[in-house]
Amino acid sequence: MATRQESDSMGTIEVPADALYGAQTARSLINFNIGHDVMPRPLIRALGILKKAAAKANVALGQIPKDKGDLIGQAADEVINGQLDAHFPLRIWQTGSGTQTNMNTNEVIANRATQIAGGDLGTKSLIHPNDHVNRAQSSNDTFPTAMHIAAAEGLKAKQSEFEATIKCGRTHLMDATPLSCGQEFSGFVAQLEAGRARLAQGLPEVFELAIGGTAVGTGLNTHPEFGQRTAAEIAELTGLPFVSAENKFAALACHDPLVAVSGNLKALAVGLMKIANDIRLLGSGPRCGLGELNLPANEPGSSIMPGKVNPTQCEALTMICCQVIGNDAAITAGGMQGHLQLNVFKPMIIHNILHSVLLLADGCRSFQDHCVAGLELNRPAIEEHLRNSLMLVTSLNPHIGYDKGAAVAKKAHAEGSTLREAALALGYVSAEDFDRIVDPSKMIGPSA
Amino acid sequence: MATRQESDSMGTIEVPADALYGAQTARSLINFNIGHDVMPRPLIRALGILKKAAAKANVALGQIPKDKGDLIGQAADEVINGQLDAHFPLRIWQTGSGTQTNMNTNEVIANRATQIAGGDLGTKSLIHPNDHVNRAQSSNDTFPTAMHIAAAEGLKAKQSEFEATIKCGRTHLMDATPLSCGQEFSGFVAQLEAGRARLAQGLPEVFELAIGGTAVGTGLNTHPEFGQRTAAEIAELTGLPFVSAENKFAALACHDPLVAVSGNLKALAVGLMKIANDIRLLGSGPRCGLGELNLPANEPGSSIMPGKVNPTQCEALTMICCQVIGNDAAITAGGMQGHLQLNVFKPMIIHNILHSVLLLADGCRSFQDHCVAGLELNRPAIEEHLRNSLMLVTSLNPHIGYDKGAAVAKKAHAEGSTLREAALALGYVSAEDFDRIVDPSKMIGPSA
Amino acid sequence: MATRQESDSMGTIEVPADALYGAQTARSLINFNIGHDVMPRPLIRALGILKKAAAKANVALGQIPKDKGDLIGQAADEVINGQLDAHFPLRIWQTGSGTQTNMNTNEVIANRATQIAGGDLGTKSLIHPNDHVNRAQSSNDTFPTAMHIAAAEGLKAKQSEFEATIKCGRTHLMDATPLSCGQEFSGFVAQLEAGRARLAQGLPEVFELAIGGTAVGTGLNTHPEFGQRTAAEIAELTGLPFVSAENKFAALACHDPLVAVSGNLKALAVGLMKIANDIRLLGSGPRCGLGELNLPANEPGSSIMPGKVNPTQCEALTMICCQVIGNDAAITAGGMQGHLQLNVFKPMIIHNILHSVLLLADGCRSFQDHCVAGLELNRPAIEEHLRNSLMLVTSLNPHIGYDKGAAVAKKAHAEGSTLREAALALGYVSAEDFDRIVDPSKMIGPSA
Amino acid sequence: MATRQESDSMGTIEVPADALYGAQTARSLINFNIGHDVMPRPLIRALGILKKAAAKANVALGQIPKDKGDLIGQAADEVINGQLDAHFPLRIWQTGSGTQTNMNTNEVIANRATQIAGGDLGTKSLIHPNDHVNRAQSSNDTFPTAMHIAAAEGLKAKQSEFEATIKCGRTHLMDATPLSCGQEFSGFVAQLEAGRARLAQGLPEVFELAIGGTAVGTGLNTHPEFGQRTAAEIAELTGLPFVSAENKFAALACHDPLVAVSGNLKALAVGLMKIANDIRLLGSGPRCGLGELNLPANEPGSSIMPGKVNPTQCEALTMICCQVIGNDAAITAGGMQGHLQLNVFKPMIIHNILHSVLLLADGCRSFQDHCVAGLELNRPAIEEHLRNSLMLVTSLNPHIGYDKGAAVAKKAHAEGSTLREAALALGYVSAEDFDRIVDPSKMIGPSA
Repeated sequence: MATRQESDSMGTIEVPADALYGAQTARSLINFNIGHDVMPRPLIRALGILKKAAAKANVALGQIPKDKGDLIGQAADEVINGQLDAHFPLRIWQTGSGTQTNMNTNEVIANRATQIAGGDLGTKSLIHPNDHVNRAQSSNDTFPTAMHIAAAEGLKAKQSEFEATIKCGRTHLMDATPLSCGQEFSGFVAQLEAGRARLAQGLPEVFELAIGGTAVGTGLNTHPEFGQRTAAEIAELTGLPFVSAENKFAALACHDPLVAVSGNLKALAVGLMKIANDIRLLGSGPRCGLGELNLPANEPGSSIMPGKVNPTQCEALTMICCQVIGNDAAITAGGMQGHLQLNVFKPMIIHNILHSVLLLADGCRSFQDHCVAGLELNRPAIEEHLRNSLMLVTSLNPHIGYDKGAAVAKKAHAEGSTLREAALALGYVSAEDFDRIVDPSKMIGPSA
Repeated sequence: MATRQESDSMGTIEVPADALYGAQTARSLINFNIGHDVMPRPLIRALGILKKAAAKANVALGQIPKDKGDLIGQAADEVINGQLDAHFPLRIWQTGSGTQTNMNTNEVIANRATQIAGGDLGTKSLIHPNDHVNRAQSSNDTFPTAMHIAAAEGLKAKQSEFEATIKCGRTHLMDATPLSCGQEFSGFVAQLEAGRARLAQGLPEVFELAIGGTAVGTGLNTHPEFGQRTAAEIAELTGLPFVSAENKFAALACHDPLVAVSGNLKALAVGLMKIANDIRLLGSGPRCGLGELNLPANEPGSSIMPGKVNPTQCEALTMICCQVIGNDAAITAGGMQGHLQLNVFKPMIIHNILHSVLLLADGCRSFQDHCVAGLELNRPAIEEHLRNSLMLVTSLNPHIGYDKGAAVAKKAHAEGSTLREAALALGYVSAEDFDRIVDPSKMIGPSA
Repeated sequence: MATRQESDSMGTIEVPADALYGAQTARSLINFNIGHDVMPRPLIRALGILKKAAAKANVALGQIPKDKGDLIGQAADEVINGQLDAHFPLRIWQTGSGTQTNMNTNEVIANRATQIAGGDLGTKSLIHPNDHVNRAQSSNDTFPTAMHIAAAEGLKAKQSEFEATIKCGRTHLMDATPLSCGQEFSGFVAQLEAGRARLAQGLPEVFELAIGGTAVGTGLNTHPEFGQRTAAEIAELTGLPFVSAENKFAALACHDPLVAVSGNLKALAVGLMKIANDIRLLGSGPRCGLGELNLPANEPGSSIMPGKVNPTQCEALTMICCQVIGNDAAITAGGMQGHLQLNVFKPMIIHNILHSVLLLADGCRSFQDHCVAGLELNRPAIEEHLRNSLMLVTSLNPHIGYDKGAAVAKKAHAEGSTLREAALALGYVSAEDFDRIVDPSKMIGPSA
Repeated sequence: MATRQESDSMGTIEVPADALYGAQTARSLINFNIGHDVMPRPLIRALGILKKAAAKANVALGQIPKDKGDLIGQAADEVINGQLDAHFPLRIWQTGSGTQTNMNTNEVIANRATQIAGGDLGTKSLIHPNDHVNRAQSSNDTFPTAMHIAAAEGLKAKQSEFEATIKCGRTHLMDATPLSCGQEFSGFVAQLEAGRARLAQGLPEVFELAIGGTAVGTGLNTHPEFGQRTAAEIAELTGLPFVSAENKFAALACHDPLVAVSGNLKALAVGLMKIANDIRLLGSGPRCGLGELNLPANEPGSSIMPGKVNPTQCEALTMICCQVIGNDAAITAGGMQGHLQLNVFKPMIIHNILHSVLLLADGCRSFQDHCVAGLELNRPAIEEHLRNSLMLVTSLNPHIGYDKGAAVAKKAHAEGSTLREAALALGYVSAEDFDRIVDPSKMIGPSA
C-alpha cells in the first residue's frame, strides 16, 4: 500500500497515500485497535455540521479569512452527506473525550479543503487542522456538542412510530372483571403517549450545546459571541432549536442530561416490554393457550415442528427492550464517573444512546408493520372466556355484600357449576335480580 | 398471648386479642414471614389519607351513611398521624399488588372505628372492612394511588437540600487551562438545578391517581364521580395537586411514571456521585494529594493511624448514589413485567422509590451540613499548582500556532524548566509578549 | 437524659450515661443521621467473633496480657450473642470503610470489659478501645474480614431451601411437542442445583480474610503470625474454613470476590424468576387461563372481587428476584470504584449482599411451604390440551417429511379439524399409520 | 437484480439469483429490517461446526446416507472458514429463539451442498434444509448449542491478556502508611488472577450443550445416541471438552449458565475499572497531580492545549468496563424472562456475551501494549511524598499509644512542621527513639 509521511507533535508516521485523515488518526488506529465498533454515522454527520457552523461563525467574527472558511464549509458538506465516511475509521474505544475523532474530523476537513483548493494532502499550510478547522474549539466542547446534535436528530426522527390494538380482564394472571378490547388497547396507547411526552420533555436539555467552552468550560481562545453564533448556525443547518449551554462547566464535566434521556428511553422500553408481552400472552395457543388474539403468520416458526407460527415480532421487540435497559446501565456507569473538568466516557455514552434510539425506532416500526397491523380478535374464544368467568360475581357486591359474594364464587368453583346456579342454590338473590345485575355489558364502567 | 377468633372467606383464624387488624392480616403474617422490610411509614400514611378521602367522597355520593363515614375519617386520622403504626406489621414481600396491605388498612380502620363507636373488635356489623372502608375501591387502584401520594410527598419535601462550593483546571485528570473556583462551583450548582428541574418535570405524572378504576380499570362498582371527588379530597388533605388519572387501565397495569421518576432520581445520583468524587479528589492529601480543598475534620479517621482525617461525608453520599442506582435497577426489573390488567410488583417498586428519596434527601442534608458548609480553599496549594502548569501555553495558540506551542510545552516538560524559559530559548516569542499574553487571570474567559 | 463526658482526638463530647459506646460513636450519630438502615445483625455478630479471635491471637503472641484478653473475650461473647445490639446504633451510610462501626465495636467491648472488671464506663485505662481491643488491627482489614464472615455464614445457612414440582409443552408461548410433568419439573430442579453449585464455587474466595493487613495491606504493627492465627481462631469459632488472604492488598482495595458472589446470587434470582413465572402462568385461570396447575388458596385475593385467589407466593418471590437484581447493580456500582489502597463502599456492599441472602433464603422457604408443597395437577385440563395440540404432527416428520407435515397442520388449523382428519384428507398417511405414529406417549424421548 | 423463486410453508417468495440462502431467510429480511447488528461471526462459525458434527452423527447412526452427509460436511466447512459469511445477512433482532438464523444455516448448507454436487440452487430434492441438514435438530437446541460453542471458544482465547506494574499508600484518597510499588502491583495481579480463575470455574457449565433435546427438551425425532455423539464430534472439531447437557429441559428453557458467566465477566470489568482508575490517578499531573507514575505518551492529547498527554488507554479500558456492565444488565433482563419450555432472548444474549468477551480481550491487550508496558515510576515525586507523610506516625503506636500519636500528627499538621519536630516538642519520644522507630523501610510488613 502506498503511503505518505505525516507529522504531528509526537513525530512522523506513515499514512495511506490517499487517506484524507492524517498523523493523529493513523496513530489512533495503532493505539486503539479494539473491537469492531466504529463511531456511528449520525455522530460523524453532527461533527460535520458543527465544523461548518464554527467556520461560518469564525469568519463572521474575523477570526479566519472568508476563503478559508468557505473551503472548510465545502469539505464539511461532504462530511455531512456521508461522502467521506471511509476516512473515519476510528473506534468508539479510544480517548474518553472523543479527542481523536475530533482530530480525525479536523484532519479530514483540512485535507479535503486543501485538495479542493488544488493543494497536496498532508500540507497544513493552507488549511491547518488545529489552527483553522478547530479554531476556538477543543475536543472537550466539540465532542459533547456533536453528541447532543446526533441525539437530538435521532430522537426527533422517531416521535411517530407507535400504535397498537387488543382485549380482555385478568389481574395477577387470574380471571378478573371484564373490560372491552378498546379499553385494554387504550392503556397501551396511554403508555406510549406518556413515553413520547417524556422524551419530548427531555429534549430542551439536549438542545443545549457545549460549543464555546473550549478546554475547561471558560471559553479560552474564543470570541465572546462564538458559542451563541455557532449554536445559531447549527440550529439553522438542522432546523432544531439548538442553543449555547448556559453553564459550560457542567456541559463538559458531566452528561447528566444524556443520562436522564437514557432513563426516559429505558422507561419507554419498560412500557414496550409490557405491551409486547401482553400481546404474545393473549395470542398464545393456538389450541392450548389463551388464544384471544390472532397474530399474523409471517414465517414458519420451527425447523422441526411443521406448521408452527410464533410471536416473533414480540420477541424481537422484547429483546430490543432488554438491550435498551443494558445500554442505560452502561451510560449510568460512565455518567457517574469522570473527574473534575471533564467526563471521559463520551464515545461510549453516545454509542449507547444512538444504539437505543435506532433499535427503538426500527423495532417499533417493524412491530407496527408486521404484527400490530395484522392483529385480529378471536371472538369465539373471548366470548367463551367471558361467559365462564367467576369474577362476574363482583357486580353482586353492592347488593349482597362481599362475604356472600365470596361464598357464591367458591361454591361455583368447587362444584364446577355456574355462578347463577350457585347464587340461586344459596338463596342470596332471585333469578330475576341475578340476570339483571350480572350483565357483563354493564360491568365495564362506573354506575351511579 | 390472649387471642380472639376472626373469620374471612378462607375460614377462621386466631388474632391477638388487642390487635386492630383482622383475619386477612393474620393470614399474611403466616404466609409471608419473609425478611425484615415492613411497609414504609409514608405509604401507610398515604393509605390513611386515601381511605379518609374515599369515605368523604362516598358520603357525598350517597354510597355510605354520614355517621359511618365520620367514624372511618376519625380512625383514618390516627392512621395518618402514625398512632396505629404498630397494627401494620406486614412485609413488602407479599402479594405484588399490595392487596394484603390494603386489606390490613381496611381492617384496622374498621376495627378502630368500631372501637370508637363503642363496639367490639372483630365485629364487622357496624363498619365492614370491605363493604364500607373499601367501598368503590380495589387494591388494584388504592395501592398505586397510595404509591403516588407517598412518592409525591417525599419528592416535594426535598427540593431544597442542595448546595456546594469549590475550585480548579484538569481534564483527563491531567493539568489543563485554568478556571476560577467560582466557575468550578457553578458547574456543580448547574448539575443540581438541572436535577431538581427534572424531578419537578416528572411530578405531574405522579400526581395522577388510579383511584376510581377498581379491579381492572373500568371503575366497576363506583359512582362515576368517585374518582375525581376522591382525588380532589386527597389534594385538599395534602396540599398537592393530585388528579384522577385520565387512563385508568394504564394506571393499574403499568408503573412507567414511577420507572421514569426513578430514572430521574438515578440521574441525580449520577450527578451527586461526580460532585462528591471531585470534592474528595480535590481534598486528597494532606501532604501527598491534590490538597486544594480542606474538608471539615468531623471525626478521627482511622483506628490505627492517629490523626488521620477522611472525606467521610463524600463516602456516605457516594454509597447512597450506588444504592439509588441499584434501587432503579430493581424498579426497572419489576416495571417491565406485570401481565395484562395488573402490574404485581407494586410493594417492591414503592419500597425502592421511597428508599431512594429518603436516602437522597437525608444524604444531601448531611453532606451540606457536615461537609460543604465547612469547606475551605487551600490557597497556597492552588497558587503553586497554577504557577507550575504547562497548560498556560494554550494562550499562545492565537499568536504562534498550535505546533510551536506544543514544542514549547514539550521542551519545558523534558527539561523541568518553566514555560517562559522554554519559549524564549526557542525564540518563538519575546519576553514582553510572553508576560503580557500568558496571564492566568486573562485565561478564564473568551476574548475578542 | 443523663450523660457523661467522653473524649477522643477531636475533643470532648456528651454520651448517654449508660451507653457502652463512646465518643467516636456519639460523633457519628451526629454526623451521619441518614435514613433508617442500621448495620445488619450478622455483621455485628461477625465483628464480635473477629474481636474475640484477635484478642486470643494477641495473647498467644504476647502482645496483650492474658487478663485483658479474657475480659475482651467475655465482652465479645455478649456482642456475638446479640446482648449488646442496642449499643450499635450506627447507620450503613457512614464512612465507606466502615471505620466508625469498627470503632463502635472497640468502644463497646472496651467499656463492657471495663464494666465486668468493676471499672467505670469511659475510663480507657484498663481496656483501651484502640490499644487493646483494636490491637494489630485497622478498620481497613477488620471490616472486610467481618463482611466475609457474615456473608459466608449467611450463604451456608441456605444451601437447602430448594424444591419444586409441575408439567406441559410450549415454546415461544405457542403450543409445541409434549413432555411429561416430571420432565418439566426436572428442568427447574436442574436450574436450582446449578445455582447452588455456583454459590458453593464462590465460597472459597469469601473464606479468605483481610485480617492481618492493617491500614494498607502491609501488616504494619502486627506480629507476622497474627493474620493466620486470627483466621484460625475464627474458623474454630464459626466452624467454617476461613483462612488469611494470600494477598492483603487486593483484600482491602477491592471487593471483586463479593461482586462475583453477588453475580451468582443474581443468576440464581434470574432462575427463580423463570420458575415462579412459569408456575403462575401454568396456574392462570381458573376458567380463562392455562389452568394446568392448581395453586394453594392461602388468602382472599381481592378486596373487591369475592372468591378470587391469586398466585401471591409467586409474586413475593419475583419481587425478591427484582430486588436481588437491584442489589447486584448497587454492589457493582460500588465495587468498580474505590481508589488506591482502599475501596470505601464497604457498608453499602455488605448491606446489599446480606439483604439478598436473607430475601432469597426466606423467599425460597416461604415459596416452598406456601406454594410448591401444595401444588396439584389439573389433569382434565392437561389432557384436553394435549389431545388438541396440532404440534403432535411433528412425529410424522421422519415418515412424510417436514413440508407435508406443515401442510397437514395448516389445513387442520384453517378448518378447525383434527390432525388425523387433515392428514387422511390429504392422503399423506393411512389411518393405521397415523394412529401408530402419532402417539403422545412415544413423543417424550428419542427413538432409534 | 436477478432473482429466482423459492417456496416454503408460507408460499413463494423472490430470492436473489445467486444467494445461497432461501425462502425463510428472504422472509426474515423483510420482517426484521431492524438496526445494523448482524449475527456475530463466531456464532455463524459455531453453527457450521454444529451442522458438520450433526451430519457425521446422523451418518453414523444410519439416519442419512453417507454421500449426503459428506456434501453437508463440505458445505459446513465453508461456513466454518467464513467463506459464506455474505450469505448470513440476518439481524440479531429477530425471533428470540434464533430460529431464522438456524434456518438460514440450513438453507445455505443445503444450497451449497447441492451446488457442489452439480445441482441447481433452490432445489431441495438432493439435500433438504430441514429433512437432511436439520435432521434430529430443532432451533431450540441448535441455537443454544452454538451459543455455548461460540462463548467457550471466545473465553478460552483470552485467558492470557493480563499484566501490570506500580506504587504508593493512600486510603480514603488520604495519605496513609507506606507500601512498596511491588506490593501495590501485587494487588492488581491478584485481582486479575482471581478474575481469570472465576471465568475458568464457569466454563464447565458452558461446555454443556443442548443438542439432542430438539423442540422441547425431550429429544423427539432423534436417535438416543445423537446428542452425545454430536457433542463428541464438536469436541473433536474444536479441541474443547464439550459434552451433551445432562438436563435438556433446563438447557432450552433458561440461560442461567450464560447469565452466570456474564456475572463473572462483569466482576472482571469491575476489577479492571479499579486498576485503570488507579493508574490514571497515580499518573495525574504532570505538575498539578499525584504524578507518581509516568504513562507512555502515545498521541497528542488535546486539539487546543499543545503538548498535553492524556491517559487514553485507561479511558478506553474504563469505557469498555462500563459497556460490559451494561451488556450484563441486558443479559440479566433477557435471562429472567422466557416462558415455559423456551427462553426466547437467545440472539440478544449471545450478542452481548460475545461483545463483552471481544471488548475485554482486545481492551486488555491494547492496555498492556500501549500503557502498562511503558509505565515508569517517577521516583523523585514518590520519595518526596513519602518523606512528608504524617501517617508515618503510626509506627509510634506500640510505643506511645494511639492518643499521643494523634496529638503528634495533629500538631505537625496544624503548624506545618515535621512529625519529628512535633514529637520532640511534645516530649513523647526521644530523638534517638524517633529516628530508630519511624523508618518507612521497616513499615511495609508485620514485625514480632
